Amino acid sequence: MFESIFQNIRNSKPIVHCITNFVTVNDCANIILAGGGSPTMAHHKDEVEEITQNSQSLVLNMGNVHEVSSMILAGEKSNSLKHPVVLDPVGIGASKLRNETFINLSENIKFSVIRGNISEIKAIANGKGITKGVDANEKDKVTEENLKETVEMAKMMSKKLGSIIAISGSIDIVSDKEKTYIIRNGHPIMAKITGTGCMSTALIGTFCGANKDNILEATACAVATMGISGDIAFKKMKIFEGGTMMFRMFLIDSISNMTLDIINGGINIEEI
Amino acid sequence: MFESIFQNIRNSKPIVHCITNFVTVNDCANIILAGGGSPTMAHHKDEVEEITQNSQSLVLNMGNVHEVSSMILAGEKSNSLKHPVVLDPVGIGASKLRNETFINLSENIKFSVIRGNISEIKAIANGKGITKGVDANEKDKVTEENLKETVEMAKMMSKKLGSIIAISGSIDIVSDKEKTYIIRNGHPIMAKITGTGCMSTALIGTFCGANKDNILEATACAVATMGISGDIAFKKMKIFEGGTMMFRMFLIDSISNMTLDIINGGINIEEI
Amino acid sequence: MFESIFQNIRNSKPIVHCITNFVTVNDCANIILAGGGSPTMAHHKDEVEEITQNSQSLVLNMGNVHEVSSMILAGEKSNSLKHPVVLDPVGIGASKLRNETFINLSENIKFSVIRGNISEIKAIANGKGITKGVDANEKDKVTEENLKETVEMAKMMSKKLGSIIAISGSIDIVSDKEKTYIIRNGHPIMAKITGTGCMSTALIGTFCGANKDNILEATACAVATMGISGDIAFKKMKIFEGGTMMFRMFLIDSISNMTLDIINGGINIEEI
Repeated sequence: MFESIFQNIRNSKPIVHCITNFVTVNDCANIILAGGGSPTMAHHKDEVEEITQNSQSLVLNMGNVHEVSSMILAGEKSNSLKHPVVLDPVGIGASKLRNETFINLSENIKFSVIRGNISEIKAIANGKGITKGVDANEKDKVTEENLKETVEMAKMMSKKLGSIIAISGSIDIVSDKEKTYIIRNGHPIMAKITGTGCMSTALIGTFCGANKDNILEATACAVATMGISGDIAFKKMKIFEGGTMMFRMFLIDSISNMTLDIINGGINIEEI
Repeated sequence: MFESIFQNIRNSKPIVHCITNFVTVNDCANIILAGGGSPTMAHHKDEVEEITQNSQSLVLNMGNVHEVSSMILAGEKSNSLKHPVVLDPVGIGASKLRNETFINLSENIKFSVIRGNISEIKAIANGKGITKGVDANEKDKVTEENLKETVEMAKMMSKKLGSIIAISGSIDIVSDKEKTYIIRNGHPIMAKITGTGCMSTALIGTFCGANKDNILEATACAVATMGISGDIAFKKMKIFEGGTMMFRMFLIDSISNMTLDIINGGINIEEI
Repeated sequence: MFESIFQNIRNSKPIVHCITNFVTVNDCANIILAGGGSPTMAHHKDEVEEITQNSQSLVLNMGNVHEVSSMILAGEKSNSLKHPVVLDPVGIGASKLRNETFINLSENIKFSVIRGNISEIKAIANGKGITKGVDANEKDKVTEENLKETVEMAKMMSKKLGSIIAISGSIDIVSDKEKTYIIRNGHPIMAKITGTGCMSTALIGTFCGANKDNILEATACAVATMGISGDIAFKKMKIFEGGTMMFRMFLIDSISNMTLDIINGGINIEEI
């Protein structure tokens, strides 16, 4: 599965257009480069359609609630060009504005993939929010016990919204309406840096930009690559007795040094 | 003093709402996480009241002079909820706009803590600016010789403004109208990276968010934690023969690895 | 050549005013500090003239197409004060908005230096764009084969625009209408992190701010310093088996640790 997906990225070096928040925008640009893509973070409404036209995928991050009209312009253009469009519904459930923004975006744009933490995905599923800030609520956490019902929720959402659903956490879920990948890579320290979620979404955009005909597997690969890099980065951080910022460095470093062999050696993925 | 303050952060994991500048926003979010809090950097005027309502403290950073109306909405809401509100008057004295912004904010919001470098604090005290850019002016520097008069100035400001005054520099001062902590930790290299001040303010917001009934000591602890981390980070940087960016990494790393033992072993604090 | 340029930076510690994009703004501020300057990133139209007045140079980065009116206010003020003004035409050629923004800026501001990748510089030379995203187009690449004609293009542009032209790539070119420096330092990995170009421009602003009477050599020095730091950073990254983020850290670290001896030992510069 991974071989052709990686090869397509190397061959096409996809340009990934991101309209994203200003907190983690630098990390997102760097992880796209590390993953083999070329980032463009243009968000002015007078140029986003042109920029998207020359890109291979579009990443919309709701952390930037100031640029909704740009997101809609870029999203509609991407849809018309059949570019993959990846949504990160950052903080949905945390404010009425975020909930309305999601509705506004989803009424105008067809998303190829929606990636969020479990609280964000539940906020979409329930049509109401239980998110605290931008981090997942502890009581929503995906465990082996509630995994089956969470997968069912993801499948139903995918059927209803027509998007692949990616849920990030200690257990990652990537699902369309029929097929689901369960990925058990990554480390809890990933929640101790800002931007892990945003970066994961940006990497999905990179993988999908080069694999338009295989969005489900491209998304699963991106999520697994992120998790495996988290595993490697934590070990390296321990060797040098570092903390969360050294972890972030090694996380993106590991993406930039990723090979098929490292993936195959580290991946813990299950298809159900 | 430190034990209960740290324990309260670990127990409550405070959500810290920051309306801050786009230069150092990523560093601020990461230091809040490293310090044991959960950051939310929402700044759209249509959601800041809701976001603040679900947070435990508010950090306002005047480096973002575009979002003053959002700051006032969030500040008024925080005041009504008795959340700690921490102000960083970045660049006050450097332009009329900054001076007017400070007046505008202080007429509408009661600040629990105001933290700045000595030039910024003097600009407030004098009602006129002598700041050059965003860095402290060399001739304003706090020394052992002018320490006593600087402490008196801080006490008077605290009495007048009803806020704790925190002055950052080679000697740090944290004072209310009666009691003052003098902290002699940290390293001059802290002035060679952008964001040390902003990060210090964000960390104060984290410590205060979990210690609402003890703002003075929480602020002193945050300032000391920052200084001790600077000491550790400089030593680590030297081992690896790095420069300013490695220093920044180890600065936040040291916050993320901080323990009560490290604090007690490294702190140089005096109460007067 | 380098000795006096470096000495002037150490002596004057120039304040560098940047109006720049939010993707790489933190890196730009940090490289200015590492290079010996003091950054101020103020971009509100109501304060940029005052801020520029108290600065020694101005850096305008077209990645921020939202702040063109602020750029013009600051640029006109800088011109009137004879401060060096450095333009980074990020993404020119990628959209009509960028092309119009360049025209708008160049009709109102006299630039001391314009620094871009070869695709951006060609877009200016040709009056039409061939840029893909923000990275240089592979087919535009400067090689030993097309070096002579590229230098001629730079000289002609310099004559026409009255600005020094700096072209970044595997071979760097810094030229006025008569004299050209060819610099063969740096490493291809510099294209694998975001912000190398923006940082290079910010460093040029720092060097020029302290060397107003010698802009050509100051620009060449800044470009060479960037390249030599890239060489050093790549070697260090290899020692620690890191990736692109460790490279970025060591890149800015090397600027912060730069000495005249390191420069003289590493530089590969040719004057034609």
